[in-house]
This record gives sequence, structure tokens and C-alpha cells, in this order.
Amino acid sequence: MNTEKYTSGITKYIPFLYVVWADDLLTASEIAVFRKAVQNDMLAEEEKRKINSWLRPGTPPSDTTITSWKQLIGQSGIKLVERETYPLTSFSMKLSHTRDSEEEISDENLKFIEINLGIQPNHYRHLFEVETRKSSGADFYDARKIDTLLKGEHTPHIDAFREFLSDPLFRWEISRDKDSFRPRVLEQVKRLAAAGYGAMAYDREYGGIGNMPAYAGIFENLMFADGSLTIKFGVQFGLFGGSIQNLGTKKHHDRWLKSTGEAKTLGCFAMTETRHGSNVRGIKTTATYIADTDSIVIDTPGENDNKEYIGNALHSEMATVFAQLIVNGTNEGVHAIVVRIRDDKGQLMPGVHIEDNGYKLGLNGVDNGKIWFRNVSVPRENLLNRFGDIDQNGTYTSAIDSPNKRFFTMLGTLVGGRICVAKGAVGGAKMALAIAAKYALHRRQFNSGGKIQEDLIMDYPSHQLRLIVPVAQSYVYHITLEQMIRDYASSSEASRRKTETQVAALKALITDFANKTIQECREACGGKGYLLENRIADLKNDVDIFTTFEGDNTVLLQLAAKGVLTDFTSEFNSDSYGDLLKLVGKQLSDRLTTFNPLFTNNTDKEHLFDPDFHLEAFRYRVRRLTFSAASRIRRYVKKGVPPQQVSLNIQTHLITLGKAYGVMLSYEIFSGFVNRIEDEKMQFLFRKLGTLYALHHIHADASWYLEHGYISGNKSKAIRQRVERLCTELRPHVASLIDGYGIPEHCMTAPISGK
Amino acid sequence: MNTEKYTSGITKYIPFLYVVWADDLLTASEIAVFRKAVQNDMLAEEEKRKINSWLRPGTPPSDTTITSWKQLIGQSGIKLVERETYPLTSFSMKLSHTRDSEEEISDENLKFIEINLGIQPNHYRHLFEVETRKSSGADFYDARKIDTLLKGEHTPHIDAFREFLSDPLFRWEISRDKDSFRPRVLEQVKRLAAAGYGAMAYDREYGGIGNMPAYAGIFENLMFADGSLTIKFGVQFGLFGGSIQNLGTKKHHDRWLKSTGEAKTLGCFAMTETRHGSNVRGIKTTATYIADTDSIVIDTPGENDNKEYIGNALHSEMATVFAQLIVNGTNEGVHAIVVRIRDDKGQLMPGVHIEDNGYKLGLNGVDNGKIWFRNVSVPRENLLNRFGDIDQNGTYTSAIDSPNKRFFTMLGTLVGGRICVAKGAVGGAKMALAIAAKYALHRRQFNSGGKIQEDLIMDYPSHQLRLIVPVAQSYVYHITLEQMIRDYASSSEASRRKTETQVAALKALITDFANKTIQECREACGGKGYLLENRIADLKNDVDIFTTFEGDNTVLLQLAAKGVLTDFTSEFNSDSYGDLLKLVGKQLSDRLTTFNPLFTNNTDKEHLFDPDFHLEAFRYRVRRLTFSAASRIRRYVKKGVPPQQVSLNIQTHLITLGKAYGVMLSYEIFSGFVNRIEDEKMQFLFRKLGTLYALHHIHADASWYLEHGYISGNKSKAIRQRVERLCTELRPHVASLIDGYGIPEHCMTAPISGK
Repeated sequence: MNTEKYTSGITKYIPFLYVVWADDLLTASEIAVFRKAVQNDMLAEEEKRKINSWLRPGTPPSDTTITSWKQLIGQSGIKLVERETYPLTSFSMKLSHTRDSEEEISDENLKFIEINLGIQPNHYRHLFEVETRKSSGADFYDARKIDTLLKGEHTPHIDAFREFLSDPLFRWEISRDKDSFRPRVLEQVKRLAAAGYGAMAYDREYGGIGNMPAYAGIFENLMFADGSLTIKFGVQFGLFGGSIQNLGTKKHHDRWLKSTGEAKTLGCFAMTETRHGSNVRGIKTTATYIADTDSIVIDTPGENDNKEYIGNALHSEMATVFAQLIVNGTNEGVHAIVVRIRDDKGQLMPGVHIEDNGYKLGLNGVDNGKIWFRNVSVPRENLLNRFGDIDQNGTYTSAIDSPNKRFFTMLGTLVGGRICVAKGAVGGAKMALAIAAKYALHRRQFNSGGKIQEDLIMDYPSHQLRLIVPVAQSYVYHITLEQMIRDYASSSEASRRKTETQVAALKALITDFANKTIQECREACGGKGYLLENRIADLKNDVDIFTTFEGDNTVLLQLAAKGVLTDFTSEFNSDSYGDLLKLVGKQLSDRLTTFNPLFTNNTDKEHLFDPDFHLEAFRYRVRRLTFSAASRIRRYVKKGVPPQQVSLNIQTHLITLGKAYGVMLSYEIFSGFVNRIEDEKMQFLFRKLGTLYALHHIHADASWYLEHGYISGNKSKAIRQRVERLCTELRPHVASLIDGYGIPEHCMTAPISGK
Repeated sequence: MNTEKYTSGITKYIPFLYVVWADDLLTASEIAVFRKAVQNDMLAEEEKRKINSWLRPGTPPSDTTITSWKQLIGQSGIKLVERETYPLTSFSMKLSHTRDSEEEISDENLKFIEINLGIQPNHYRHLFEVETRKSSGADFYDARKIDTLLKGEHTPHIDAFREFLSDPLFRWEISRDKDSFRPRVLEQVKRLAAAGYGAMAYDREYGGIGNMPAYAGIFENLMFADGSLTIKFGVQFGLFGGSIQNLGTKKHHDRWLKSTGEAKTLGCFAMTETRHGSNVRGIKTTATYIADTDSIVIDTPGENDNKEYIGNALHSEMATVFAQLIVNGTNEGVHAIVVRIRDDKGQLMPGVHIEDNGYKLGLNGVDNGKIWFRNVSVPRENLLNRFGDIDQNGTYTSAIDSPNKRFFTMLGTLVGGRICVAKGAVGGAKMALAIAAKYALHRRQFNSGGKIQEDLIMDYPSHQLRLIVPVAQSYVYHITLEQMIRDYASSSEASRRKTETQVAALKALITDFANKTIQECREACGGKGYLLENRIADLKNDVDIFTTFEGDNTVLLQLAAKGVLTDFTSEFNSDSYGDLLKLVGKQLSDRLTTFNPLFTNNTDKEHLFDPDFHLEAFRYRVRRLTFSAASRIRRYVKKGVPPQQVSLNIQTHLITLGKAYGVMLSYEIFSGFVNRIEDEKMQFLFRKLGTLYALHHIHADASWYLEHGYISGNKSKAIRQRVERLCTELRPHVASLIDGYGIPEHCMTAPISGK
């Protein structure tokens, strides 16, 4: 075949045709894109006919034709410039002599194909001679605009805070010795307090601005500085201060809240015991009211009933102690009491014994300790009495009759802490992703025979999967948590129960995501990732415990699932419950009959990228898992199986439901957010992130969808392929996406994140 | 219903009937077991008829009947003793008054049901009143027998070595400061050398016993003492000593091997460079032969072409340096040269510059460093010349013509190191599993309303999944690696290529398994797992890098897949290759037509537990993935796509194939081993471990099997349920299985592993 007969109009399409046919990138959707570009082009009909003749999947061009294209390209001697925004378009125009200078405007039709087919360097890098320019080129998206979208209404607070972190006191350094690390972190906490950051969530009269969402934003950004600092900050202002704010009343606020926000009163949150972590209701510490002295006596009954892992325990003057409150011989359930544990000179109060928890996997800048109480007496007023009180006659009173409900109401006010933990986890994941991605954007390894320059590791498909999927997840979770913290801050007690269910699922889902992501980042950086100087190692060790504290993930997922089941029906054991189940069962099976092949086999890009498809899939899964759990529970109950045994029997089912619920919820929130983005170009990017998130999660649970006949085998394969393809399509925007996290330069200290 | 009318013969079956119907545990296979027990019992026909009438899945007993059983049991006031070997049998006999004393022999038919249905405490714990006895009871299997099976022919070596580790020098302690940690580890290495452990793999004339498999067993056991020690030991004797042994010839052995085994000569293995880790062939260090002085000059050309992460770099006198060997202006490819880097006083030799790599995520007892060479001259004899030499005339000679083949032959001799890394990973996983399981066997959390005693966390299904699946994997991988090290030690150069492919897949698979397992163990121990004193944290950080060093897992999986493809056909680009593909394609699609519903829908326990089913499933997957990869490659090649681009296009496909191959291979080896176990009772246990391994992996890849129509949705669900059920069935043997690892008491220092 004589290649020289092609017109310039045809020639400019040759590199595109070569790339798509060399890698079988064409499906019906892609061909439509290609044909549309050709249609819109100012070509002669003969030229269009010729090009279209090469766009029939049923009769692809022959291998000879494809090989002749390769020769045509190879003989041209033209190099493809890797860092251009539209490298293939630019290359094509040079090849067809329609572009000579660098400045010339490129062809809109070719650009249309390039962007819509997501053709990227790893599709063609070794098909052409490639020229690598060191200057960073493609920045289709402005990272600052992305960052502004993420910061939302907190922009001024967060911008100021990031600048504040440039203070040398916050410069990250390797810290191996807890005895020097802890005082430094304490000093950092005091500096933050002095600048007003500790009190942000408190009311103005206590030195704050009453802005919990902004506080949570600050909290996330602290992870860019250091994990230990983040957690110590959270213990002092969020847990200790938060317990006074949320469980106490005005007298407590007046007495302690301002000095807590200023870090003049240091406090800890003494809930967990050595033998009781997840089962808080079963804690053993007692708080016995003594009428004679009008005081409450705190006591640790057994040797292993001490408080444990209590952050700030070695620096604190005060502790909020959770204990079984006994009034006139009656156990009124778990309550919180403020207890002084050190005097003004820092000496332990009589009856208080504290031991260092010693070295931990991470967070060694936080002073975790064990606390024992031996008949420690505090005034009655120290009972945080918002939900239960002892009056001056020594009588216990509460507006909430059920001890169970009272307990959960108290815990519910602390849900903000779980949101912060999840936000911190996202912050840690972002930091690790930014370091790993920056490394992958300059690290090269392996080359083909004829080339000097090795490939960027970011251009390996496995590397894209490992880093770009979590980048998409980080965006979804960021937006989700922004919504949750707003919901939480504005929630009534009635709606708080729902928020609690949601946060339980999300905290588990997101901290697990963060850990897996940081691990991928470590491995993605090879030996460099293993060096402490590159930060990922510390992030890994610090974030690890996020899966456990503020609620063990396994327990939280079951809690979330039980919340979903409760929402499903509040008539759990009533007669009509059976009817309800029958109705839903019928709806689900009706729905099943509508799983017609047109849906289950639909592998069109338009369908696979449709948010309605994703939402429908996630909701179907949650609904079906809820229905089957409820049905199982009903069968057990009818046979007289006790509740705890039922919980055991369906435990793994509940965990699956809890995860599915978290995935659905975060996608619902994120796609709602995307719909409200006004800038169309930005909306396009965010929608693509959401699509990657959704298809990744459907793919992760593909066996379940396949088992239920919700998708066909072909559709499952198509989804997997789309996940890989979407990573590649997002590849040119990785630099913008990680810069969009807004991590300040003074925090990006990892040597490998530079060049 | 008047429950008193039941005869004693019927009554003893009531608890069993209640348990199985309360949790829908019956499938056809299970019913057959139950019926068989009843059939064999000395009951009246009327009694048998009655019991069998309750064993029809189509017409289950009414809820009223089931509830009446509950009352019968509840009113008896009899308690179930949790720690008995057959708790339900014992309970049933007491209920039916067929057993009064503790000593009486229990009913064989009931025991038959209990063991074969795998009825365990988490199926019934809250159905009965439970009495918990502190003394450990059930030990159906003797842990020492299990340990002996695992140790195999190395038993005397390993027993002696474990005893040796009781030396206080090896007692594990928290080490935060590298400047004190490293000298301690060095001292430990020297102590091991003095006892002859370093030289075990070397020949007798060099102080060893020529036993590489026993050396690898020692190496794994070292992980029970400390990760840093294990790696430093491996660098000195395995990598440095191994390079002299395998790449050198007699003159090198005579000169260095004995003193290396005695740790009198300390050495390091300088292969990796800052810019070249995975792509070793592309390293930049040069070794130029200078005829005038008959010497070789080692040089680091660029600032970032230094050796990096070199273990033992700060203590070593010698280094095996990998460099591009240039003789008479020709680059003969990568070769290894022994270079003196420190003089007798420990001062760096002229031209050698070494820097500490600093703190790492883990392994801080290992002195990793960076090394630069500035025209460092060594005698020609220092070239390790087994595969390529410079003769006295200054001419390069090699028996292997192809530089490529020569390079891979050299690397192939170092495959033993990869096996050791995988063995170390298994050792780390075992240690973490032992700690987490021991904790789960005494840690309790949550109770039902009426009970004082909380549930053991080991009795939660999610906890069983998280710990018992990896226990099964640890057994499979232990046996697999024992086989691999024997194969390696006895392999010829011809068979070594195959071993290399196998080890590449297994090293990646097993180090990944170990990391995920240790992470699960950390989380399974909650806050306790986060404390350094409990060992899991250090194991996590030490084992983390096993995924990277001795070959990055992502790269190794591709290497393995390429090996599988090469095996598939050595006629890769020949004409007959197309014919071969057609033939295999036809075989696979023929096979597909035999995916008749009887197979794809078969959910019988006998079928799901059949090793032939597992092997068939794993082999089908490997064959199909190989076939589709080969077909894709052929299509690309026909279109003239260059090899490096083909590699990029099919990269994720190859990674999937590499993993599938490793899973298949390890199961093949393990099931062969199980077939050869003579003790039937032990064989039963090991077969169950293998079944859990197999079903877990089929389940993990269920979406793929479903996509290909290999299993139906129902079968996929049945497999998932069997995985959970198998964990429960193995639950009573967990203590024996982890004690079967043989971790010496003096190494089990984690406080939580005691009580």
C-alpha cells in the first residue's frame, strides 16, 4: 500500500486511527465520538467516506493497513511531545503539515476525539518517537479552583490556617524519642490554642466562633503537619472540651470551656477501659453519690478496670471520666464526671494513679496513659448533667426515662469526633497520595530497546489503578464529610440519630480507605516510601489506629446496619412487620423481573457513566441486603432465638450491609454536589471522579451483583475495563488533582515529592 | 405441645435439632449426616421415625415446635460447658439423663453429628445457659504433632535453633534508637555465626553443612526473635555470602566464604541504585577493566546513580557490587565484583563514600546506606566469574553467549533469597496470628442481657473470618515454600528457570498475604495491638518492605506471568503459534460447553470440598488468563505494536495471571502434601485447611468465575457460606493450630498473648 496517496485531511486522522486500532479501544460509544468529529470536520465527502470505512468494528482495518500507518508515522521522523495538553492532536497536525509552529491553534475535532476517548500516553507512548520535556506542561485544570471548591465556605479560615502552619514550630521532623516528641507536640497545641484554633467550635463567649465545620476543616489540615499533633489537638479541644460543651451545662461551660480552648486547662477523655473498649456500656468504673458529703466518689473496682489509651493523660490537669453512676444504690448507667487528676504543681491528686502506655506503632507524640482511681471524691457539681442530674436532695433525675436511650443520647453528642477522625483519615490519605503521585510524575523505570528515556511510573496502568482510584475516593469522601459535619452541626436531637448511623458507616469506610491507600502509596514509592524522611511511613503508622479508636470499625459497621434496619421499620416485632417484609420482597422480585437483558447487558459508555445507573445499583444493594437481614431476623425471632444469638448469626451480613450503606451514602452526597457545580468544565472533571468511584465500587462488589443477576458477565467485564480506562483518562489531570488538595508547600517536606 | 412425652432417645437429639433449625444450618449434605447418626443409633423405629420427621428441609418443624424445644432445654436448668471437646454432645446427654458424671463416655452418634456438621459455640452460645471454665479444655489435636509435620526433615535443626534463641541476647525489646539497636543486632548476628547458623547453606569445607532448606527454616524462625535480626542475617549470609557462593568460583570461596559464614568478614550486596531498583539491567555503576594495571575500576557516574538501601553498609568491610562491566570498550552487561569498602580499622577505602539511609518505617536495626564509588580500583580476580570472566589477556569470555541470558542466569542463582523473604513473611504472619489468636481466646466483649460473662471475641464470626482464613493460608504457604526451597536447592540450571517463575509469583503472593494478615491482626487486637510491647506493630513495619525488596511485587507478578506465557509456548512468534492458540481456544470453549448446570450449580458439600474441584477451578483460571493474554499479544504483534507498548497494554492482565498462577501452584503443592500425610486424623485437619484456602480464593475471584459462567450465582453464594462455616468448624482447633507453629515460649513475649 502506497501511503503517500492520503490527503492531508486524512493523514491527520492516521495517528488516531492507529492508536485506537492498535489497542482495540473502540466500542460503539467511542466510534460515535470519532464519527462525530469527522462529520464536523471540513473534509471532502470522499475523505470522510475513507475515514469512516476504517471505523467499522465488524470489519476492522486489516493488519496490513494498520502496519502501513505505523510506517507512515515512523518515516515522518516527527516526535510526540509528552507534556503537551493535547499531545496526539499536536502530533497529528505536524504529521499532516497543518501545523508548523508551536503557537498555532490546534484542531478542535482532533482535540474532541483525544479528550472524549481519553487517549493517553500509556496507550501510545511506544508507538511513536517521544520527546520528553522537563518543563511541566499540561495543566488543563487550575488546581487553585479545585482547592476552592473543596474548601467551600471555610476558604478564609483554611487559607489563614495553612499560612499559620508555616511557623517553624510546625515544621515536620523525624521524632523517635517520645520524651522529646511529646513536649514539642504540647507546645504546638498551645500555639494553636493561642491563635484561637482550639476554641473554634465553641461559642463566642468562650473564645470561639461557634463554627464546628470550620474546626473540622482545620483538623483535617493539621494532618499535613503531623498526625500526633492532630490527635493531641483533637483530644484537648474536641474530646475533653467537647464533652464539657456537649454533656455539661452552663455552669461547666463557664468554669472550664474558655480555659480549655486556650489550653490553659489541659484535659483528657477517660472512657475506654482495658477490659472495655467497644462495649462502653459495660465499663466498670463506678461513680457513687455520697449524700453525706454531697460528693461523687470515683473508683476503679478491679485491677484491669483502669482507663486505658487515654490521650493527654500525662499532661492533663482534668479528666472527663465515664463511669457507672450509682445514686442511692441504683445504677443509673454510664455518666460523665469531671475529675481533677493533677494539682497546680502537676502532681497527681490523691487516689489517682497514672501509667504511661509506652511506645505505640504511631502517634508517639501523644501521651497515652492508663488511669486508676481509688475512691477519688469530687463535688456533685462535677457531674456533666445535661442528660441526667443529681438534685440537691440527692435524687437522680433525667428527662430521658430509658437508661438505654439516655446512654445513646450522650454518645450521640460525641459523633462530631467520629467525623473529625474520618476527616483526619482523608487528610492523611491526601498527603500520602500527593507524595506518591508527585514521585510517580518524575520517577522513571524501564525502557524499550531503542529508547534512552525510561517510562514515567505514572504511565503504567497498574500504577494508575493504585493511585488514581484512591484520588477519586478522596474527593468523594472529602465532599461527603463536609456535608456530614454541616448536618451534624445543624442537627436536632431527632435527626441526630440518623446522622449517627451515617457517620458510623462513613467513619469505618473512610478510615479503612485511608489505611489501604497509604499502604498503596508506600508500596508505590518502593524503597523511598519506606524512609521516614518521606512522610508516608509516619502517616501509615499514625492513621492505622483510626480504624480502632472513636469506635472499632467492625462494631461501627454493625451499628450502622442496625440503624438502617431500624429505619427500614420501626415496627420491628409488630404484626405488620411480616406484611411489610412481604411487600418489599415482592417489590424486589418485581424489580428482578425488570432486570431485562437490555439493562443487565448494557455496556454502553453512556449507560455505564450514568449517575442514575450507579445510584440505582447502590440502592438496590442496600435495599436487598436490608430486606434479607430483616427476613432472617424475623425467622430467628419467630423461633425464639435470643437477640444476642441473632446478632452473632447475622454479624457478617450486617457488616456487609454497613459497608454498602456507606458507599451508597457517600455517592449520593457527592453526585448531589456535582450537580450543583456551576463551572461546566469543573463539573465534567468532578463527574468523572464520581464515575470512577462508582464503577470501582460496583466492580469491587461485582460478584454480589452477578450472583443476583443484576449485571451480566459482559457488563461486569465492561465495568472493570472502564475503571482502568477512567484512570487513564484522569492521568493528565493527576497533578492538578493532587495540587487541588491545597497542601501548603511548607508541609510538603518529603524529599521525593520534589524532583 | 407437651414436651414431656419425648423419650430419652429422642430428647438427646433435641438440642441438636434446635441448634440446626434455629440457624438454618441444614443442607442436603448435612441432613445426610444427621440421618446417618440416627440410623446408627440404638433407637426404637418409632423414635427414629419421629426424629427423621424433623429432618425434611421442604417441611421444616413449625416455629411452635422449635420454640417448645427451647422451653424444654431452658426448663432443664442444665448448663453447657464451653470448653469441653464436644460441648453439645455432653449437654445433650445430660439433658436426656444418659450421662450423669463427667467421666462417662459420650455418645458416638451425637459426636458424629457435632464434628461433621461443625456445630460450634457461635451457633448456639446464646441459645443455652453457658458455663465458662477457665481451664483450657478442647485440644483435639496435638500441637506438637502439627509442628513436627511442618518442620519435616529439619526437625533437629529447628528444635536446636529454637532452644538456642532462649539466650538472653535474643530477647526481644523495644528499640527506638538506631544507634543502639544496630550494634545489638550486629552482636546477635555474630552470635548466630559463632554457633554455625550463618554458614548452614555453605559446603562443609567452608564451615557449613550444605543445607539450604534447613538454613531457610532457621531464617523463618528468626522472625520470631526479631525482624531486623532476620534481615541483617539474610544480608550477611544469604545475599553477600550467597553472591560469593553462587556467582563466584573456588578462588572466591576459598578466600571469603568461611570468614563470611563466621561473620569475621562482614559484607553487603550492592545492587540497587537510587534511580534503578526494579530495572536492574539499567543500573549505571560502571566496572571498567584496565589492562595496564590488570584491574577493574568501579565508578558511580551520576550523583543519583549511587547504590541505595544497601543493608549492612555501615558495618561492612566488603561489598559485592553490581555494575556494567566494560572490557575493551564493550559493555558486557551487569556483573558482580567484590570490592573492599573499609580497611582493617573500619575506615572507608579511598574513593568510597557511604551515607546512612536514616530511619525507616521498620527494620531500624539494619544499617541501610547509600554508597558512591569514585574510581575505586580492585584486582581483576575480584570479578565473580562463574558466568563471565576476563582472562589474563584481558579478553572477556563467557560460556553464555547472549548477554540477556547471562544476566538472567546470574539473577536466577539468587532466587533462594526470594524464597527466604517469603519464608520470613510467613514467619512474621504466624507470629502476628499467634498473638492475635491467643488474645482472642481470652479477650471478651459484649454480653446478652441475662448473662454476666461476655463473649470471647474468637466466637464472633467476623473475627473467625479475619483470623482463621489467614491461619489456613499460613499452613498452605509454609508447605509450599518448603517444597520450593527443596526444588531450588536440587535444581539444575535448566529447571531453575521454572523455579524462578514459580518463586516470583509466590514471593509476591505471600509477602502480600503477610502484610494484609499482620494488619488484620493489629486491628483484631484493637488498642492493644497498637502498643509496641505486643509485637504486632513491629512485625507490621518490618514485613512491610518485604513487598518491595528482593523484587517489587508488581514487577515479579509480571515476571511470573511472562514465565507462564513462555511455558505456554516457546514458539512465541512462529507460524504455528496461531494454530496453537486456535487449539487451546477450542479446548476452552469445549470445556465451556461442559459447564453444564449439574456442575455450575452444584452446591453439595462433597463437591465444594473436593480438591479436584478446587484444582480444576484454579487451573481453568490460569489457562484461560494465559490464553487470553497470548491471544492479545498475538493481535498486537500482528499490527506491529512494539513489545514495550504491548507490555503496557496487557500489564494489569499479566498481574492478574501472576497472582492466579501463584494461588494454583501453592494449592497444588499443598494438596499433594496432604495426600501424603499418613495420620488420618491429621490429614483430615490439613485437608480442611486446604479446603478453606481453596474456597477462600475461589470466593475472592468469584466475579471472574461468574463472568465466565464457570459457577452459578447460587454456587458462588454457597462457596461464600462455606468459607464462613469452615472458619467456625476450625474454631475449636485454633489453639492447636497456632501452637503448631512452634513459636518458642521465650519468643512469645507479647503481654496480650498471656492471660
